[in-house]
Amino acid sequence: MKNIAKAPEPFWTKTRLVAMSLPLIGAILAVASGSADAATNAAAGGDLKQDDFVGISFWIISMALVASTVFFFLERDRVAAKWKTSLTVSGLVTLIAAVHYYYMRDVWVATGSTPTVFRYIDWLITVPLLMIEFYLILSAITKVPVGVFWRLMVGTLVMLVGGYLGEAGYLAVWPAFIIGMAGWAYILYEIFLGEAGKINAANSPPAVQSAFKAMRLIVVFGWAIYPVGYFFGYLTGAGPAESANALNIIYNFADFLNKIAFGLIIWAVAVNQSEADKVAKA
Amino acid sequence: MKNIAKAPEPFWTKTRLVAMSLPLIGAILAVASGSADAATNAAAGGDLKQDDFVGISFWIISMALVASTVFFFLERDRVAAKWKTSLTVSGLVTLIAAVHYYYMRDVWVATGSTPTVFRYIDWLITVPLLMIEFYLILSAITKVPVGVFWRLMVGTLVMLVGGYLGEAGYLAVWPAFIIGMAGWAYILYEIFLGEAGKINAANSPPAVQSAFKAMRLIVVFGWAIYPVGYFFGYLTGAGPAESANALNIIYNFADFLNKIAFGLIIWAVAVNQSEADKVAKA
Amino acid sequence: MKNIAKAPEPFWTKTRLVAMSLPLIGAILAVASGSADAATNAAAGGDLKQDDFVGISFWIISMALVASTVFFFLERDRVAAKWKTSLTVSGLVTLIAAVHYYYMRDVWVATGSTPTVFRYIDWLITVPLLMIEFYLILSAITKVPVGVFWRLMVGTLVMLVGGYLGEAGYLAVWPAFIIGMAGWAYILYEIFLGEAGKINAANSPPAVQSAFKAMRLIVVFGWAIYPVGYFFGYLTGAGPAESANALNIIYNFADFLNKIAFGLIIWAVAVNQSEADKVAKA
Amino acid sequence: MKNIAKAPEPFWTKTRLVAMSLPLIGAILAVASGSADAATNAAAGGDLKQDDFVGISFWIISMALVASTVFFFLERDRVAAKWKTSLTVSGLVTLIAAVHYYYMRDVWVATGSTPTVFRYIDWLITVPLLMIEFYLILSAITKVPVGVFWRLMVGTLVMLVGGYLGEAGYLAVWPAFIIGMAGWAYILYEIFLGEAGKINAANSPPAVQSAFKAMRLIVVFGWAIYPVGYFFGYLTGAGPAESANALNIIYNFADFLNKIAFGLIIWAVAVNQSEADKVAKA
Amino acid sequence: MKNIAKAPEPFWTKTRLVAMSLPLIGAILAVASGSADAATNAAAGGDLKQDDFVGISFWIISMALVASTVFFFLERDRVAAKWKTSLTVSGLVTLIAAVHYYYMRDVWVATGSTPTVFRYIDWLITVPLLMIEFYLILSAITKVPVGVFWRLMVGTLVMLVGGYLGEAGYLAVWPAFIIGMAGWAYILYEIFLGEAGKINAANSPPAVQSAFKAMRLIVVFGWAIYPVGYFFGYLTGAGPAESANALNIIYNFADFLNKIAFGLIIWAVAVNQSEADKVAKA
Repeated sequence: MKNIAKAPEPFWTKTRLVAMSLPLIGAILAVASGSADAATNAAAGGDLKQDDFVGISFWIISMALVASTVFFFLERDRVAAKWKTSLTVSGLVTLIAAVHYYYMRDVWVATGSTPTVFRYIDWLITVPLLMIEFYLILSAITKVPVGVFWRLMVGTLVMLVGGYLGEAGYLAVWPAFIIGMAGWAYILYEIFLGEAGKINAANSPPAVQSAFKAMRLIVVFGWAIYPVGYFFGYLTGAGPAESANALNIIYNFADFLNKIAFGLIIWAVAVNQSEADKVAKA
Repeated sequence: MKNIAKAPEPFWTKTRLVAMSLPLIGAILAVASGSADAATNAAAGGDLKQDDFVGISFWIISMALVASTVFFFLERDRVAAKWKTSLTVSGLVTLIAAVHYYYMRDVWVATGSTPTVFRYIDWLITVPLLMIEFYLILSAITKVPVGVFWRLMVGTLVMLVGGYLGEAGYLAVWPAFIIGMAGWAYILYEIFLGEAGKINAANSPPAVQSAFKAMRLIVVFGWAIYPVGYFFGYLTGAGPAESANALNIIYNFADFLNKIAFGLIIWAVAVNQSEADKVAKA
Repeated sequence: MKNIAKAPEPFWTKTRLVAMSLPLIGAILAVASGSADAATNAAAGGDLKQDDFVGISFWIISMALVASTVFFFLERDRVAAKWKTSLTVSGLVTLIAAVHYYYMRDVWVATGSTPTVFRYIDWLITVPLLMIEFYLILSAITKVPVGVFWRLMVGTLVMLVGGYLGEAGYLAVWPAFIIGMAGWAYILYEIFLGEAGKINAANSPPAVQSAFKAMRLIVVFGWAIYPVGYFFGYLTGAGPAESANALNIIYNFADFLNKIAFGLIIWAVAVNQSEADKVAKA
Repeated sequence: MKNIAKAPEPFWTKTRLVAMSLPLIGAILAVASGSADAATNAAAGGDLKQDDFVGISFWIISMALVASTVFFFLERDRVAAKWKTSLTVSGLVTLIAAVHYYYMRDVWVATGSTPTVFRYIDWLITVPLLMIEFYLILSAITKVPVGVFWRLMVGTLVMLVGGYLGEAGYLAVWPAFIIGMAGWAYILYEIFLGEAGKINAANSPPAVQSAFKAMRLIVVFGWAIYPVGYFFGYLTGAGPAESANALNIIYNFADFLNKIAFGLIIWAVAVNQSEADKVAKA
Repeated sequence: MKNIAKAPEPFWTKTRLVAMSLPLIGAILAVASGSADAATNAAAGGDLKQDDFVGISFWIISMALVASTVFFFLERDRVAAKWKTSLTVSGLVTLIAAVHYYYMRDVWVATGSTPTVFRYIDWLITVPLLMIEFYLILSAITKVPVGVFWRLMVGTLVMLVGGYLGEAGYLAVWPAFIIGMAGWAYILYEIFLGEAGKINAANSPPAVQSAFKAMRLIVVFGWAIYPVGYFFGYLTGAGPAESANALNIIYNFADFLNKIAFGLIIWAVAVNQSEADKVAKA
């Protein structure tokens, strides 16, 4: 027990997550004040401009995703076998996102328009993988019914397909919004009050519970960024083209939080529990 | 025994395979309703369009194949030595398919035509490897005569060469179809009623038997997608050009099921059995 | 002893090698019948045509070489330390060949002409590495004099330089042919009747002897394909341009047999012996 | 104890760091004398010129960063688990820098202008990672409060954002300079006199203390190169275009010292301590 | 002791090094006789010609460097921890050279001119790494003063900077030649008669001494190729353009010997000693 206590205080406590959201606010303000110029420059096409903050955010997150992928894949060798698949999936999420961000970055820098179709292709693969992480983490602790896996998967697909039908114009924006929100609500029910939440409460050691709760908070607040973006892009008076700067910088930050920070939480708890197990055995 | 029971309920039970086929139906409906527009857009050449569902399916499966390859190669270190080759081959199948899908995706997005020659090059390498998986799985359990290996290989080649001769116009479509179907029937005989099936029934532990059966179901229902596509493409009135949308989205889904899901079943049983062996030794 | 008996029956017995040569015959027949059309299409330049069987064979072997490289490098972790270098070299051979085949494939598809210079660059590096394999395999079993290494190396270089001088027109074709054949004869002497052959006969366990013999058969029959190609290309009436189709498909198949199948034999005996050693120690 | 004494004398002692700074002086002199010609050539665009010393320094550091990345990632397997993350992060720093240096190199060779925006994107990701190294190294020795992590992070961001606002013209150069310097001062306080410094002094074994001190010296003298560059570029009479040669060669050398040499110190102490632990256990 | 005796006879004995230099002579003769044609073809630009022996040698060494890099990095897992860094550095040397050779190859094939600037960028990074190898090998055996490291480093830099100043025209060719030779002489003193040589003589086991001596011979005879090339290129009547063929083929062979063969010696002694240690412990 003494040894487990030695593990570093987790960096994903609520206070810290709030602190991590500060850059987002700063980014939004920066875009708000500078967006007119940025739009002018980007419209001129060509290479990355010094004041194209949206383009810079695309560059930063592309590189950060590549680095995170390498990080998760290398650090797999530090954790116990049962935690390895969790890190594999964390790395796959950032790998897939990295590939799509390189396409998106190029589209943005060259045309200044929002690469919606690539965002959804990315989300259609990575968001289900993120949901699988809840299942994998609980499976590393105890036996979990497969129903949990499939319920999380279905909720995710409903959420994504609803969003895409609205953004691509196959459905009126309001009904599509409601379908997407319903899928998200169902996921939240499952991980807070449903079987997944109960299994965590009943079986997980304190460090895993803490990580599980932090991951849940990301699904609440981090994922909320997407419908907020959708809302401001499609459901207010302004059209999506005018809000392209704000929309993209918000989405980019959301992907940073939901993919990289989410993965780091899993990495931290996996390292932590692997060390604790080693101590317990010795 | 208690520990083996702890292994998670396999996700490849019949019920779940049926559930997994639902997206296929959805995809077909989506294409059916949207194919006219898609064809128009794709014909215009250029980059991926927001409503080119066939192109989107090419993008998704390309990325999913890359991710699966990474997954199988990384997860090799979790399984016992005798299972490693099975995962190597699973990863090779998705690797080879990924490379060819990148070519096919580009052909489709640029021209809107079906890249038949690349599909067959891909199948000519990957389908024999999938057959080898049956041999490798049984070999991890017990000694298997090499005759099983060669019979599966011959059946596979007959099936593929028949199909290609028909699609490339070297043989009348009906005789070619019959040759291909005969090859497939021979494979099914071998894995259900022949020596491979008997070895599995006599020697495999329950989890391996369950995986073997799920893999067999994929060879029945998943592989059936190819002759169905061939049938609708060449043996009904409509020419292959008209049905290009449906044909490609069906083939893409089939490759997803037959390569990625097939590999995941092998991964699951390999992890499962490796853990069980570790428990048995300890 | 019981456990060694459990090792799977080797797939490289003479019967099977004969069976493996059947596709070659099929390929030659296919080319023979279709070569006129193929030449027409390839001459038109551009992308891979559906009936360019030579181009298709370049595609298939390129991909197969990439996959084999991955296979050998991944599977290294299954074998004992003393066998690892053998697998490293097997993978290097297919890696080097894969790189050159990508160049050759592009030359062929774009121009329809034979990329002789790339074939020789490839052989100049890979063929000596294949010879080293005999030395490495014997070294894993017992102490081998370095003279064996150097004699195999010299024979190989004589063989290759002779061939190149003839094909590139630096020497009359007949003298060049004789020089090349002399190098090959010297290698065959060394591995059948010379020191290498004797060391194998005296020291190797049965499975290694069987693999050594299969590798020797490949050096006899598989390598024979190159002088046969040279003979038909330069020493009969027909010029190299007319026989480009047959020459390339034969060389492609030869490389498949001499690099991939050769490497698989080494992999199989390495896995087999590593398992046997583990059993012997336990 | 005898064995620890056997560890090689660290190469990062003060004397040696001074010695390592000699090439910097040489480089500056070389540029000073040759800058006129270099500017002429680079302005002409095109490939790397023989006397474009700035371009050559971009080439050398690009390659050195790639090599360092490979080095850190490969050498991870020599160190104990608790040191692995330190090496992972060292490798990520050089990986990210390598990618950006390839872009910067191309910008320089093609246009002869300073790629400021890429420098800042790079620093915005790598400099926080370098700060994390202090936290990781202390964490490998003892339990460290997370506050240390966040304070180092905040200081770093203040430093970088201040610098960028000044260089990109969003803030007057003097106030921006002061903000950046304040962030740097805060970091120096933390690692010399603050909690991080105290933890090191109280808990680290001699070799770690020595490495920690060398790393601190790099943060003092190596990082000083950036404000010095900024000062000469913006705060003296000469404009940034005139001093592009000197500015870039200085920044390049600074990145070499602060990323590669910094990482090598961490590698050396990690190998050293891992060996010492092994000896202590045995 | 019996087991150590079992280690294969080293391939780097003097006799063999002489044997290895035979191809060099052959290459020079080939170029001498064929250089007129080669120059004609290369001047015509475009792809690799069948009789462009210099271009072919660029191709072969590029590929051989890639293969060597893979070889050294893979084979690291066969050797004991203390030898791993030596193999890492061997692989880095060939990696860095491979990258630069790809650039050089393209320059040569496209323009037929000598890519001097890339050769020196390469040497400026790889030659110091080769010198570090002497230090690393001795460090694997015993404690070595850091002074040895720095003296070898300084000698190397003097040698390289002298050469570059002469070839790039910053210094008269004769004084530059003398400076470079002085650096080389200093290195030779250090490894033959200086501290490095004495440490080896006093502490190394026979196999390491033998490897150390072979590496020294390479520094004498292999490195001599560079000043010889410089001498014939700049200090005789003929200008560097006329002797481009001979100069490049000689430099290419020198890099083959000094990078690949040098690394293989290190690999052989590392494997050899790791096996011997394992036997000694068991």
